[in-house]
Amino acid sequence: MNIVLLSGGSGKRLWPLSNDIRSKQFIKLFKTETGDYESMVQRVYRQIKKVDADATVTIATAKTQVSAIRNQLGDSVGISVEPCRRDTFPAIALATAYLVDVQGVDPEESVVVCPVDPYVNEDYFEALKGLSDQADKGEANLVLMGIEPTYPSEKYGYIIPGSADQTASVKTFKEKPTADVAAQYIAQGALWNGGVFAYKLKYVLKRAHELIDFTDYQDLFAKYDTLTKISFDYAVVEKEEKIQVQRFAGQWMDLGTWNTLTEAMEEHVIGKGVLNDVCENVHIVNEMDVPILAMGLHDVVISASPEGILVSDKEQSSYIKPYVDKFVQQTMFAEKSWGSFRVLDVEERSMTIKVTLNPGHSMNYHSHQYRDEVWVVISGEGRTVVDGMEQKVSAGDVITMQAGCRHTVFADTELKLIEVQLGQNIHVGDKKKYELEL
Amino acid sequence: MNIVLLSGGSGKRLWPLSNDIRSKQFIKLFKTETGDYESMVQRVYRQIKKVDADATVTIATAKTQVSAIRNQLGDSVGISVEPCRRDTFPAIALATAYLVDVQGVDPEESVVVCPVDPYVNEDYFEALKGLSDQADKGEANLVLMGIEPTYPSEKYGYIIPGSADQTASVKTFKEKPTADVAAQYIAQGALWNGGVFAYKLKYVLKRAHELIDFTDYQDLFAKYDTLTKISFDYAVVEKEEKIQVQRFAGQWMDLGTWNTLTEAMEEHVIGKGVLNDVCENVHIVNEMDVPILAMGLHDVVISASPEGILVSDKEQSSYIKPYVDKFVQQTMFAEKSWGSFRVLDVEERSMTIKVTLNPGHSMNYHSHQYRDEVWVVISGEGRTVVDGMEQKVSAGDVITMQAGCRHTVFADTELKLIEVQLGQNIHVGDKKKYELEL
Repeated sequence: MNIVLLSGGSGKRLWPLSNDIRSKQFIKLFKTETGDYESMVQRVYRQIKKVDADATVTIATAKTQVSAIRNQLGDSVGISVEPCRRDTFPAIALATAYLVDVQGVDPEESVVVCPVDPYVNEDYFEALKGLSDQADKGEANLVLMGIEPTYPSEKYGYIIPGSADQTASVKTFKEKPTADVAAQYIAQGALWNGGVFAYKLKYVLKRAHELIDFTDYQDLFAKYDTLTKISFDYAVVEKEEKIQVQRFAGQWMDLGTWNTLTEAMEEHVIGKGVLNDVCENVHIVNEMDVPILAMGLHDVVISASPEGILVSDKEQSSYIKPYVDKFVQQTMFAEKSWGSFRVLDVEERSMTIKVTLNPGHSMNYHSHQYRDEVWVVISGEGRTVVDGMEQKVSAGDVITMQAGCRHTVFADTELKLIEVQLGQNIHVGDKKKYELEL
Repeated sequence: MNIVLLSGGSGKRLWPLSNDIRSKQFIKLFKTETGDYESMVQRVYRQIKKVDADATVTIATAKTQVSAIRNQLGDSVGISVEPCRRDTFPAIALATAYLVDVQGVDPEESVVVCPVDPYVNEDYFEALKGLSDQADKGEANLVLMGIEPTYPSEKYGYIIPGSADQTASVKTFKEKPTADVAAQYIAQGALWNGGVFAYKLKYVLKRAHELIDFTDYQDLFAKYDTLTKISFDYAVVEKEEKIQVQRFAGQWMDLGTWNTLTEAMEEHVIGKGVLNDVCENVHIVNEMDVPILAMGLHDVVISASPEGILVSDKEQSSYIKPYVDKFVQQTMFAEKSWGSFRVLDVEERSMTIKVTLNPGHSMNYHSHQYRDEVWVVISGEGRTVVDGMEQKVSAGDVITMQAGCRHTVFADTELKLIEVQLGQNIHVGDKKKYELEL
């Protein structure tokens, strides 16, 4: 099975764990059998591989998420990087071209496209295989998943199938309705449209060539910023007559707010935290090193990260966005392809950061124009390169780098260092990257 | 007026702001006219000086609080340091000897003794002057403050005065009663015993010499650990027949729990914090650099410091102690006589600290046996001394110190540095102090 996972933009609804650079799908909230925690992305990938060990997984996403994906999934997935945001049709066309031209997948093969962040069980991925198999048959050009509704939601579009069969033709689509109208749809046998569908690669390639003047993946990628914003629904789905839907009745949750998210948590406390015995329906998600003590609370979620602390009534938590939008804040923590960093201290003319490099990885070879830096290695072994000079380093070694000096560090084992940045104008944009000639 | 302020032990009832080394009286929670915040100690000292600019203030306290007092009050107060805890009679005897032998106060003069942490207005300190003036008269050996009760509290002892006059003889003392009994006392005209009293220095010196074999302050200090634990009430007050009480009817609050403390706060938010409009009776006290967002809460206190985060129903907050006792935690922040430090990062074999030195101050000249240290100066100017070698330093300078090496830093201006400690066995006890021979 080929799967394209659409990994959407940043979100603040799960602040302080999600922010401008960390989307909710990368937060590690779900306990695995081994007792570790995994993110939605990791959970979905693990579930896909369990259902189909040979599945080819491609994540269609923005550049800003590449580091986090590589950090959490390594090199096991393909990434179709959208150079800029251009709605779902260009994104899916690009991912389709990527599969054929970069991954070498036969255009006769089918692919399933689905969001990266549904909270589901393995039966969902079995259902995805069903969609893919149905697309293989060629009876229809598009095969959609129709989720059996559990309540008359106003949040989803609806699909009216031609029959109540497991696989049926699509009679019509309905936009997000009011609850009353939704109830009427459901009485007619309507299904939720979860934005999941399968098609043969050649089908979407053909549609893409009809709508966009391009030769291959590289060409499409190069002119991506010139493309018109248009949704896949509008460009393809609504115009297609040979279109089917397959029913899915398993668990399917959209964990978009703290309220819905905490319902999916197995434990009341993740991280360091204590609830006294008078607490009821309280959840703590703590990414800080210090304990949270909750006493006498009801229906409250508490979450702390290096970016801030949320204490909210669960119902109220869905109104978080305008408050968080007002916080002017620099990124205090980020996962990168090579490891992660955390801001420890911010002063007017200095910033202190803890950098953790994963074994075998290194940051880009780079320089800064407006700041000096000092590295103090606190654990691990590796090699620094400063203006072309390579040097072995381990705990206790100090490296000073003047503004303009090119530098990087390779981690031979996991390597941690304290980086002190010094200058009158410290900002993330002050970075020039170089190829390392060694 | 001579005043001895009894500065009590560490407390965890106001965790995470108070802890093993920071007592509640040093937390800066009270807004001044200039918009800054002051601690209870600073507030009380400022109030005393306003009422009596010539007052001699002495703080009787444990060694562990000396740094915080010097940090917050400078050298303007005398400190009678108790070498160990020996209850109130030895402490008051030591402070009395300190006034006479160290500060050179005439033994014929009176002194007022009171706790360091009442939340009161200036009329309270006017009343202290009244006690002192009354003691000067010599009608009685002890003059107590009797606080007019506002409700039948079970938390205080009661004084039954001989009359309803402003100054009266003491008929008898009553232990902390039940609420019913307290109501009966109050009907009889009883007053709260707030532990405030005045006496002539020579009086307590005489009692001290009767009970303890010592020559002077130095001698008493030297044998302090051999003294019997005995309260001033038991050793002196209850045995004294020439004893009076003066009524006090002004505001007098004991801010011992988050519930009572937040009542005395002028604002709902201290530090970075936002309450949404559905919050009612919510207080935020945030010592962290990141924002706290509170949504849809009622009657809750939220407090965050580098030691942890408390989110508690206000009533429940009085039950905090057993939970906090279970947290095994190192000190993450401390005020020292020379400035302050904050722990930024703790790893198995390293610890990273931010050190702030006040202008004109320096830490002790010291060495560590089991750890190396690296300093990166991030702002200010000063001079380091490393193994006797003095060197000017400013932002960007890096100083490396091997285990065993003696070092200190003087701050010519406010000076901040990042200290990285490296070693297999990092603990606060690994410190050897030296006289600096320069």
